[in-house]
Amino acid sequence: MTELEMHPRTHRPLLAESVRLTDDGVDILDRRVYPFERSWVHCAGVEDVAVAIETMVTQSSGPLFATTAGLVLAAREAADLAPAEAVAHLTAAGRRLVATRPTNNAIRDAVAATLEPLARAEERGLDGAQLLPLVTAAAGAHEMLYRDRSVAMGAHAAALLPDRATVLTHCWADWYLVATVEAAQAAGKELRFVCTETRPYLQGARLTAPTLVEMGYRPTLITDGMVAATMARGMVDVVLVAADRVTMDGHVVNKVGTLQAALAARAHDLPFVAMVHAPDPHAPTIADVEMEERDGEEVLHIAGRRTAPEGITGFYPAFDATPPALVTRIATSHGAFEPGRVADHFTIEGAP
Amino acid sequence: MTELEMHPRTHRPLLAESVRLTDDGVDILDRRVYPFERSWVHCAGVEDVAVAIETMVTQSSGPLFATTAGLVLAAREAADLAPAEAVAHLTAAGRRLVATRPTNNAIRDAVAATLEPLARAEERGLDGAQLLPLVTAAAGAHEMLYRDRSVAMGAHAAALLPDRATVLTHCWADWYLVATVEAAQAAGKELRFVCTETRPYLQGARLTAPTLVEMGYRPTLITDGMVAATMARGMVDVVLVAADRVTMDGHVVNKVGTLQAALAARAHDLPFVAMVHAPDPHAPTIADVEMEERDGEEVLHIAGRRTAPEGITGFYPAFDATPPALVTRIATSHGAFEPGRVADHFTIEGAP
Repeated sequence: MTELEMHPRTHRPLLAESVRLTDDGVDILDRRVYPFERSWVHCAGVEDVAVAIETMVTQSSGPLFATTAGLVLAAREAADLAPAEAVAHLTAAGRRLVATRPTNNAIRDAVAATLEPLARAEERGLDGAQLLPLVTAAAGAHEMLYRDRSVAMGAHAAALLPDRATVLTHCWADWYLVATVEAAQAAGKELRFVCTETRPYLQGARLTAPTLVEMGYRPTLITDGMVAATMARGMVDVVLVAADRVTMDGHVVNKVGTLQAALAARAHDLPFVAMVHAPDPHAPTIADVEMEERDGEEVLHIAGRRTAPEGITGFYPAFDATPPALVTRIATSHGAFEPGRVADHFTIEGAP
Repeated sequence: MTELEMHPRTHRPLLAESVRLTDDGVDILDRRVYPFERSWVHCAGVEDVAVAIETMVTQSSGPLFATTAGLVLAAREAADLAPAEAVAHLTAAGRRLVATRPTNNAIRDAVAATLEPLARAEERGLDGAQLLPLVTAAAGAHEMLYRDRSVAMGAHAAALLPDRATVLTHCWADWYLVATVEAAQAAGKELRFVCTETRPYLQGARLTAPTLVEMGYRPTLITDGMVAATMARGMVDVVLVAADRVTMDGHVVNKVGTLQAALAARAHDLPFVAMVHAPDPHAPTIADVEMEERDGEEVLHIAGRRTAPEGITGFYPAFDATPPALVTRIATSHGAFEPGRVADHFTIEGAP
């Protein structure tokens, strides 16, 4: 009996459905306390959503869905406004959401797609009431596109994982991970997982590992310092990470710690696979990506408890950049590319 | 005004004096809760000391001093015993202490040195009362030797640190760190420090960083996943770590995470310096070192709080081995050696 058969899956992982648009706002699963508490942060308006993204109530794919839902709230707020005011309100809401976190381009792209109706709104004189259904439909279409692209990308990523492989994950790849594991399961592949805990937020311990449990696995958890040691013991076959951004020349921007996982993989002759829907055409190379630094105080705490006494300064570079030379393949929704060829994503045939 | 002048040091760091032999036992500073609590674990006998070492009340240099003090307690316990029984009791106590933790050779060497009087005891018919002062003197001599060797080694290590360097530390180098920093200060060198927090015990956050504060610095704390990212930002000039064991062919065995710090240093062209009093002549190469694995449950907790839910298995390789090819210099009490030449420690002139 395989691990999968022992733990049959009966539902989609909760974290894949963790932003819920309701009649009176948006409820966002609080990833800061999950899975020990399953509490939802209620956002009555778009500003609440922006604050929730900034304060890490949700992260990874979460902000994309929070952004589309937040813009629907903004459109509701603008429902009684005249054309110019409605456009101004939605434009400001979009800017506010883009400003929450700068490194991942998903928020920017979600705002652009969801507010695409604004381009025609002024010339046609659409008011807030007319804009609301258009923005709502655009939001839904962008979410659907994201799901479809994840499924396509997951199939390409899963094809890179050998049957019976032990996969090392870092941080939390959200929809990318779920889609890839679902594709691997559909292909009948048996996998095992080693997850880094991913300080300071412990996304690996609290999001990735529990989601893999939901999907039928028994993952092994290590601290962020144990990646190379685990590889040196022969316990890892492949590294699989999401990318918050991939540049057109193949740099992989992802949660801090990814770079040293890639260095360790290279030293141990292991493939390093990154997942992203598409490289970012607005980022020809790494100099075009703003690397977010977060408050160093976060490094001095774990789950609200202080870990270091006075006199010590925390430093929290949220992301690092793994150069193409350390990347084996980048799976996108159009295929699996060598990092130097990832721009081919835009020229080959592929769906969606 | 330099940082040092702003924070003049008035005493030795507390952690350098954290095992205290008293009339009724041994008090050991509890490093599991330091610096937030300054509580001492009272050990009435040698078995208490062994348990304290096993349960990480003290670690790094602590077990050496706990071992010498513990053997004095064992000698007191044997004070009323006839020669054969006294020798048997002390021999068993030594074995018990050696069995506590297998990777670092300091406990083994401390037992051998402190129980050296036993070699003559049986032939001379010394009873427990006669052995007590001999064992007590041998314990004190071994502690003194350890301090002297630390001072000598610290001078060699400090010479490898450029003036105005930012030094990245991993875990807690205890006496090695204190001696090296004191030597650098005596040489008038200005240093800055970046410390990894070192999960799961957070020795970097709780022991190294606070001790550096005691010594007049304002260290920067990072998580274990940020080593390469910090180097990529140009914030590190040299990596400085202790070694729990160095093999005669230059492998550096140290706290897990050291290997990936060394890989990151190599990728960023930074020197990687390890400190040890001497390589271990009983370990010609890495196959001769038992690599301790600790209870994986420790990875699933931080400061007593669980970090991952059910269904997830923790894995805790306590140490890793950095191969000589990644090591720039090994500072010993006799000099600073290229890793492939560290066996020269035993053939060159040097004190002590």
